[in-house]
Amino acid sequence: QRVDIAARGSKQRDKAHIRKTKPVHFENQFGSYDLEVPYTEIKLSDTPGVGPNPPFIDYNTEGPKCDPKEGLKPLRLDWILDRGDVEEYEGRERNLADDGKRAIKRGKATKEWRGRKHNPLKAKDHPITQMWYARHGIITPEMKYVAERENCSVELVRSELAAGRAVMPCNINHPEAEPMIIGSAFLTKLNANMGNSAVTSSIDEEVEKLTWATKWGADTVMDLSTGNDIHTTREWILRNSPVPIGTVPMYQALEKVEDDASKLSWELFRDTVIEQCEQGVDYMTIHAGVLLRYVPLTANRVTGIVSRGGSIMAEWCLQHHQESFLYTHFDELCDIFAKYDVAFSLGDGLRPGCLADANDPAQLSELMTLGELTRRAWAKDVQVMIEGPGHIPFDTVRMNIEMEKAICNDAPFYTLGPLTTDTAPGYDHITSAIGGVEIARYGTAMLCYVTPKEHLGLPNKDDVKQGVIAYKIACHAADIAKHHPHAQDRDDAISKARFEFRWLDQFNLSYDPDTAIAFHDDTLPAEPAKMA
Amino acid sequence: QRVDIAARGSKQRDKAHIRKTKPVHFENQFGSYDLEVPYTEIKLSDTPGVGPNPPFIDYNTEGPKCDPKEGLKPLRLDWILDRGDVEEYEGRERNLADDGKRAIKRGKATKEWRGRKHNPLKAKDHPITQMWYARHGIITPEMKYVAERENCSVELVRSELAAGRAVMPCNINHPEAEPMIIGSAFLTKLNANMGNSAVTSSIDEEVEKLTWATKWGADTVMDLSTGNDIHTTREWILRNSPVPIGTVPMYQALEKVEDDASKLSWELFRDTVIEQCEQGVDYMTIHAGVLLRYVPLTANRVTGIVSRGGSIMAEWCLQHHQESFLYTHFDELCDIFAKYDVAFSLGDGLRPGCLADANDPAQLSELMTLGELTRRAWAKDVQVMIEGPGHIPFDTVRMNIEMEKAICNDAPFYTLGPLTTDTAPGYDHITSAIGGVEIARYGTAMLCYVTPKEHLGLPNKDDVKQGVIAYKIACHAADIAKHHPHAQDRDDAISKARFEFRWLDQFNLSYDPDTAIAFHDDTLPAEPAKMA
Repeated sequence: QRVDIAARGSKQRDKAHIRKTKPVHFENQFGSYDLEVPYTEIKLSDTPGVGPNPPFIDYNTEGPKCDPKEGLKPLRLDWILDRGDVEEYEGRERNLADDGKRAIKRGKATKEWRGRKHNPLKAKDHPITQMWYARHGIITPEMKYVAERENCSVELVRSELAAGRAVMPCNINHPEAEPMIIGSAFLTKLNANMGNSAVTSSIDEEVEKLTWATKWGADTVMDLSTGNDIHTTREWILRNSPVPIGTVPMYQALEKVEDDASKLSWELFRDTVIEQCEQGVDYMTIHAGVLLRYVPLTANRVTGIVSRGGSIMAEWCLQHHQESFLYTHFDELCDIFAKYDVAFSLGDGLRPGCLADANDPAQLSELMTLGELTRRAWAKDVQVMIEGPGHIPFDTVRMNIEMEKAICNDAPFYTLGPLTTDTAPGYDHITSAIGGVEIARYGTAMLCYVTPKEHLGLPNKDDVKQGVIAYKIACHAADIAKHHPHAQDRDDAISKARFEFRWLDQFNLSYDPDTAIAFHDDTLPAEPAKMA
Repeated sequence: QRVDIAARGSKQRDKAHIRKTKPVHFENQFGSYDLEVPYTEIKLSDTPGVGPNPPFIDYNTEGPKCDPKEGLKPLRLDWILDRGDVEEYEGRERNLADDGKRAIKRGKATKEWRGRKHNPLKAKDHPITQMWYARHGIITPEMKYVAERENCSVELVRSELAAGRAVMPCNINHPEAEPMIIGSAFLTKLNANMGNSAVTSSIDEEVEKLTWATKWGADTVMDLSTGNDIHTTREWILRNSPVPIGTVPMYQALEKVEDDASKLSWELFRDTVIEQCEQGVDYMTIHAGVLLRYVPLTANRVTGIVSRGGSIMAEWCLQHHQESFLYTHFDELCDIFAKYDVAFSLGDGLRPGCLADANDPAQLSELMTLGELTRRAWAKDVQVMIEGPGHIPFDTVRMNIEMEKAICNDAPFYTLGPLTTDTAPGYDHITSAIGGVEIARYGTAMLCYVTPKEHLGLPNKDDVKQGVIAYKIACHAADIAKHHPHAQDRDDAISKARFEFRWLDQFNLSYDPDTAIAFHDDTLPAEPAKMA
């Protein structure tokens, strides 16, 4: 009988998927580095009568183990400081309002961070983004690290970054994160969303979900918290995250004005963005493409504006009869992002919330503006990804990625699914993994997972795992379809194990050995003929 | 927390998805009929302040309720007899050997069928297949019934059948089944496999799985039993099945020779086929394309021959140094099928069992032979589907359906998935639903589901449900992508309900209301912004 797959645990997986690191020496004009590049080793047994099988080597997102109260070591700190182009400064004052009304009332956050602390760093004279380095022909340790993880040349990494076709979200104030790259020339990546809300979840749970998501393969995590202790929750997450962290700063800004969108202002928003830059958020969703004149285009939609950030900005624009401050102050935002190396994830605030609204003038008009904003950010050497839909019919998925490439000059596309039908709440990890393969196959660089709880509730640990694994499948099937070098190696290894009845190897090479073992039972006749 | 989704039951679904029938009067040269064409009605609530929403009308596969010990009423019996082209005859003698060694030892089957019995019918003078009628310009009640279910013209049904582009599996000895059609011009269909094995499952369980699968939306069911009481189990299934039943007669033939493939013969196989024709099996998988000369083409494969029927025939060919009796006696098989209107499902015995073996000479050579056999069957007015892979990379899925159409003259393609990666045992309902959408989008007529237990064990009730729902999603997403008329209506209805916060309507319009309700919790702020 099916049981909670999270409760089933990860015992076999933890035994079989061993995180190791490969020593790589690297020198550039700023220093000499002994990089320790992580990978996963899966040991395989011998083929009886034939000989040993080499261990399978996989990409690793899990990060080193640490005490969550201490946080991870600042892997990149020396790399950043050696470049000599940043300065420490006192930073924004700790403000209990950042943690919400209840924190002010209590006089403290629920669970103050007491682990590793740092004064924030910021750029001194020029942008310190990986894009700036790439464009100036500088190979950073970050680029080398990524090239080793991706098993490609460092020049490919540099040139894709310089062209804007790839991003490496790596805020200098999140030195704990292991560099990774998002671009269509590289392995397709997957993002897992989490975050508390006004009524659920503790800081401990959010940190546990983060660790859980990266264990199963999340390449980045978005903290979409909207509840209490939003600043402190984020601090815990950042200090413990081996992967880049994304946020939607508008959610916190709205908390600060007690959910009254009309009270939002550029100043309050900017202050929130700087707060998050100093904490170390690696990429931020900015819905700067929701222009005042696009809002009426959604009037006859079946589901209107379903993006939370999009609807907040649409409300603000209508109430103030003004153009969005995210758009009018976009260059200032770029200047801030350039100081910390925060990447834009330009939000699709007008994405379709159902098939009926797909590919409509609202969605496509916003995309045109995102293209304009991409070029403005690149002019300031700021990294950019473009967020994409949403709910769209399967036959229009390819058009969506091709249009994004054309309009946004090949900036990496980062899509939610897309969901290919609206009819299956409870199963939207499946409806959307289907669209995910199609859109990634044609070049989408990162897929945002959808969990079975989509449209219904907030994901628990089990939902996070279901979502991550459905998207591991989607990313991998797309990489195979793209003929990404060596993408099919794991399939070949597991198929060989299957044919040779090396059951344990088959379980261990699967994404979820514990579930495979639980499903395997001795009712299955042991003959190859039984396998599809 | 996630629980067994089968145990979660179907209470809300059973309350909300009401089977009804539409009276349709029909006359042809043989008689006058008052058809009762089934559909599902989902009642919707009003939009507050606006007005009522019409009920949603859906295709229904569930069949009427009945006492499983009695079986269903013989819906089609009069239609068949009125044509005056069949005769009742005594049929093959009841042979305990048909139920296996244990039945012989006991002197009876475990649970003899005591419900409605019939002497078998067979054709008198000419083929009595729906293809024959279609080609002779005869509109049958079956065709009219199907046209009403599909919401299309009866001439489309007739012409597609006549051209071989669609099949209606409807053995005259399974009059209980509600006519349905499989072809790329119609709604994409889904098949659910079940069946006992040597060590698991009782007759009651198999009948329960049948009822369960058709409740969730299975359009046909294959009984792949290989265990005890194989004949009697099939009798229970046929007498209770409102959907066409498919089998792989080779499995029973092999039981009769105690799993020693070398002892198989045309005579024994033919006898088994006739046994199943008389019982009422609607379509049979026949691996007649596995020719002696193709077997060596599999020698260097990673996973060899993974089709059970394929490997049995390959073994027989090698042991006897003879061409497959399924191939050499194919015309005789056609003559038998034409007498009962059994449809061929020409098996892909050399289908790839992993990505590494996909699209290889073994697979493609067999397909050429299936094309030849299709034309031979059509020459005798026998209906044909073609079975397809299997495990294939996503970027080659489209080529597979286009090749099948070209080589097999547009005979309906019926594919297992295909699975788009080998790396996710425990999640192969997802790896394969992905390939299913792509292959159905380009014209595959029926998808054979894959359950989460694939490669690991035999599916229980929960796995059957998971498999059926994943494939409901796949078929539906493909129908939308194909722009099948009205395919998107359900999406539009559920999206409207979502936007209007008609939660119960949203649950009821989903494929699995009970799971949607279980997932919904009050942690979700009730604002549209929270929805993707």
